[in-house]
Amino acid sequence: MREQMKIGFSTIVRIEQITALGTFAHVAQVIAETGGRIGAVDVYRVGKKTVLRDISIDVQDEDHLAVVVAAIGKIEGVRVVNVSDRTFLAHLGGKIEITPRMPVTNRDILSRVYTPGVARVSLAIAADPSKAYALTIKRNTVAIVTDGTAVLGLGDVGPYAAMPVMEGKAMLFKAFAGVDAFPICLDTKSVDEIVETVVRIAPAFGGVNLEDISSPRCFEIERRLDECLDIPVMHDDQHGTAIVILAALLNALKVVGKKLADTRIVVNGIGAAGGACAKILLSAGAADVIGVDRDGALVRGRSYPENEMWQWLADNGNRERFTGPLSQAMKGADVFIGLSRPNLLTVDDLKSMAKDPIVFAMANPLPEIAPDLAEPYVAVMATGRSDYPNQVNNLLAFPGVFRGALDTRARHINEAMKLAAAHAIAAVIGPDELSAEYIIPSVFDTRVVEAVAKAVSAAAVESGSARRTPAAEDGVPVS
Amino acid sequence: MREQMKIGFSTIVRIEQITALGTFAHVAQVIAETGGRIGAVDVYRVGKKTVLRDISIDVQDEDHLAVVVAAIGKIEGVRVVNVSDRTFLAHLGGKIEITPRMPVTNRDILSRVYTPGVARVSLAIAADPSKAYALTIKRNTVAIVTDGTAVLGLGDVGPYAAMPVMEGKAMLFKAFAGVDAFPICLDTKSVDEIVETVVRIAPAFGGVNLEDISSPRCFEIERRLDECLDIPVMHDDQHGTAIVILAALLNALKVVGKKLADTRIVVNGIGAAGGACAKILLSAGAADVIGVDRDGALVRGRSYPENEMWQWLADNGNRERFTGPLSQAMKGADVFIGLSRPNLLTVDDLKSMAKDPIVFAMANPLPEIAPDLAEPYVAVMATGRSDYPNQVNNLLAFPGVFRGALDTRARHINEAMKLAAAHAIAAVIGPDELSAEYIIPSVFDTRVVEAVAKAVSAAAVESGSARRTPAAEDGVPVS
Repeated sequence: MREQMKIGFSTIVRIEQITALGTFAHVAQVIAETGGRIGAVDVYRVGKKTVLRDISIDVQDEDHLAVVVAAIGKIEGVRVVNVSDRTFLAHLGGKIEITPRMPVTNRDILSRVYTPGVARVSLAIAADPSKAYALTIKRNTVAIVTDGTAVLGLGDVGPYAAMPVMEGKAMLFKAFAGVDAFPICLDTKSVDEIVETVVRIAPAFGGVNLEDISSPRCFEIERRLDECLDIPVMHDDQHGTAIVILAALLNALKVVGKKLADTRIVVNGIGAAGGACAKILLSAGAADVIGVDRDGALVRGRSYPENEMWQWLADNGNRERFTGPLSQAMKGADVFIGLSRPNLLTVDDLKSMAKDPIVFAMANPLPEIAPDLAEPYVAVMATGRSDYPNQVNNLLAFPGVFRGALDTRARHINEAMKLAAAHAIAAVIGPDELSAEYIIPSVFDTRVVEAVAKAVSAAAVESGSARRTPAAEDGVPVS
Repeated sequence: MREQMKIGFSTIVRIEQITALGTFAHVAQVIAETGGRIGAVDVYRVGKKTVLRDISIDVQDEDHLAVVVAAIGKIEGVRVVNVSDRTFLAHLGGKIEITPRMPVTNRDILSRVYTPGVARVSLAIAADPSKAYALTIKRNTVAIVTDGTAVLGLGDVGPYAAMPVMEGKAMLFKAFAGVDAFPICLDTKSVDEIVETVVRIAPAFGGVNLEDISSPRCFEIERRLDECLDIPVMHDDQHGTAIVILAALLNALKVVGKKLADTRIVVNGIGAAGGACAKILLSAGAADVIGVDRDGALVRGRSYPENEMWQWLADNGNRERFTGPLSQAMKGADVFIGLSRPNLLTVDDLKSMAKDPIVFAMANPLPEIAPDLAEPYVAVMATGRSDYPNQVNNLLAFPGVFRGALDTRARHINEAMKLAAAHAIAAVIGPDELSAEYIIPSVFDTRVVEAVAKAVSAAAVESGSARRTPAAEDGVPVS
C-alpha cells in the first residue's frame, strides 16, 4: 500500500555550543553526514562561554529530523535548545487576529465608533434588537464551538489542544467565504453546561459551528441548541461531511449510470459523520441505507438506548431488516461508505457487491481499504486523503453553507438547505468534466463557495428558514 | 453653562418619490428652506411609478436633522424610507473582523495551518497546555465580557445593545496596543451564571476585560473570576477609571504643591468607578478618603450588607469617622472626585474646601458642577468631557495595562500593576509641560501605551504575578 507521501520540510534547530569545546564547522559536518542540508545559520545570542545559534535545516521527514537532531545532540559541548519547523512557526502567536474595519486615528472617528456616538447606536438596538444584524458583527460572525473531546483523529485532547484546529477553521471561514469566525473552546464536557454556555454567549453571533465534539453527545448538543437558539447551529463533523459525501455520490452515480432511488447503501461506522451521512442519503431519496457499527447492522425493532442516532437509523434505515455483520451487508450493495477504521474491508467484500461498486473509504489517514488494492474491483473510489483522486473534504461545504445561512439570516440550517448544498457542489462539475476520477471539485475551486451559498440561500428562503431575502434589503438602516 | 459643542454631520436620507406627483427640484427646495445643505444625490432604484434616491445632507445636529426630515416627509408623493448618518454607517455590518494572519492560498499552507499538519501542534499542546500561549491566540487575546446592565450612561440595555460598545472597545484594544479583543455579550444577569460561563470559555483567552456590568454585582463577579481563573481579570469601569484618576491627581498635586500623604479626598458616588478610585487612592498613600453616596459619608462601624464595596470603604476609609452629607464632607477637603450626578456641587461647596482645591467632576455628559462655574474657585479641574482641558479617559489605561499583563503572562492584574500604570501615565507629562490645564496626556499621545505597558510588565515581574519575563523568552517553541 502506498504511504502518505512525505514532503521534505525546513526546520530550525537552536543549539547552544560551548565555544571552548568546538567549532560550528564540526556541527555543520555532522548535519551533512546525517543528510540534512543547512539553509542558514543565525547567531541568536553570544554569551561569555557559549553561543546560541539558529540553524535552518532541510530534512526529508520527521524521522529524518529526529536522526539529525540526535546526532547534533551527541556532539561534545553542544546542547539542542529547541527544534521548530514551518508548521509550528505558522502557529506562533496564533493564526487569526481581530482587526478594526476602519482605522481609529483621530477624535472624530473615535467619537463615532466609541463614546459618545456609539450610544445612539446602542439605543437603536435596545429599541429594536433585530437591528443587531445590521449594526454589529452578528451579521457575519460564527462561533466555532468545541469541547475538545474528538479533535481530528486524536480523541479527547481537551479545549487547549483543540485551539489550533479551531483557529485553522476560522482562517478557512474567512479565506473561503468571508465569514468571521471565532473559536469558543469550552472547559467542560457536560452536555447541559455546553448547551447553556453557548446560549448565553449567542448574542454576538449569527451562527454556531459545532466542531470535534464526541459522538453520541454531539447529537443531543446540536439538537438542543437548535431548539433553544434563533440562529443556525450545525455540527460540521456531521453535516459538512454528509453534504460532501452526498455530493460525491450524486456524481459517482452519474458515472456508473445508476439512480439514488434504486441504490442500496452500506454506511459503516455510525458516529457523528456516519449517522448524518446515512440520514442525508435517506432524505435525498436513497432506496435503502443500512447502518453498520461494531455489533453489525442496526435493525428496526431493536432498542439502542445509548445512542439516539443508532436508534433513528434502526427505525428509518435498513428497510429489509437485514441482520448480520459488515461482510454480509456488503453482498449486493451498490455503495459502501466507510467512516470507521483502517483496513476492515477486503477484496472479497468488494467482489460481493453489485455491479459497478462505489466505495468511499473515508477512514483517515488509512482508509477502510487501500485504494491501490481496491482499484481493480471498484467503479468509483473516494477517500478523505488529498494524495488520491476524489478527496471528500468538508471544506467544500461549511464555508458556503454558513455564507448562505448568514446572508439570509436563517433561523436553522435545515435538511432542505443541506440537500441544496450537496446538489450545488455536485453541479460544479459539468457533464463534460465528470469522470470516475473527478466526481468532487477541488477545495481550491473558487466556483464552489459561491454555488453553495447561492443554493443554500435559495433553499433557506424557499423553506421558510430565512428572515431576509438578500436582494430585497441592501439599503442602509433607519437611524 | 457651556453645552457640549454640536458638530455638524452628514446624513443620508433615502426617499421614495412618486414620479407623477412632483420633481426632485421641489425636494431640493424644501431641504434648502429648512437649512440643510445637499452634498450629493444618488438614484438608488427606479421603478415604474416611483424613484428611490439617496440624498446626502449636511445638518447642524440631530434636532436640525429631524426638522429637515419632517419637512421632506410632508411633500406630496414623497416617503422618507430611512435616514442614516456617519455614525450609523460606521457601524454597518459591525466594526471588527477576524482575519487570518497568513493567506491560505494553496495546499501546502492549508496542510500546515489545518489538517494534517495542525495535529502535531494540537498534540504538543495536549502534552503541555502552557504551550497554548506560544501556539494559539491565547497569548494576545482578551475577552471583553459584559451583561449589558450598565452600558455607558444608558443603564440596563441588554447584551445586544451592548455589542457596539464592546466592538468599539475591541477596535481600541487593537489600534492602541495591538491586543486582539473579542466581545462576549452575555444573555444572563445572574452573577453565578456569568462567572461559570466566563470560566468555561476561558481557554482561548489570555485575559478578561469586564465591561459595563452594574454595581455592586460587578465587585463579586470580578473577585470570583479573579479567584477561579489563572488569567488576569479586570473590570475596566472600576480600575481603568481609577488608574487614570490617580494619574491625574498625582500631577494635579504637583501643580498645587501638595503631597498625597497629606491629602484629604472626598469621593462622591461609590459605584464601580468610585469604589475602585477610593481604593487605589488609599493604596497609593492618600491620608484619608471619605466615600460619600446617597445617604452621606460611609462610616466605620456601620454595616452595609447590600454592597461589599461600601463596606470595604467604610472599614478602610474615612479615618476620622466623619458623618454627614456631601456639603459637610467638602469642608476643608483638598480634593473632590465626583463619579455621580450632574450639578450636585455648589460654588459654596468649593469655597468651603482647603486652599487650592482640586475638583474632578466626572459625571457624564454633565459634570457635578459646570467647569465654567467652578473655574474661579478651583486650582485644578478635570472632567470626563473631551471639550474641556484635562479629560479623564480610561482609554489612557486599559490598552497598556492589558498589553503589559499579556506580555508577562500575568496571573492577575494586582494593585502594584495598577499603581505602576497610574504613575506611568502621570510621568508621560514632563515637569516643563505640566500645568493646571495639562495634567493628563491626550489619548492620542503615542507615548502613553508603551509607558504603561512597560511599567505594568515590570510591576508584574516584581510582584510575582508574571509567568514570563519578556526579554528572556523570545525564541521559537520546542516542537
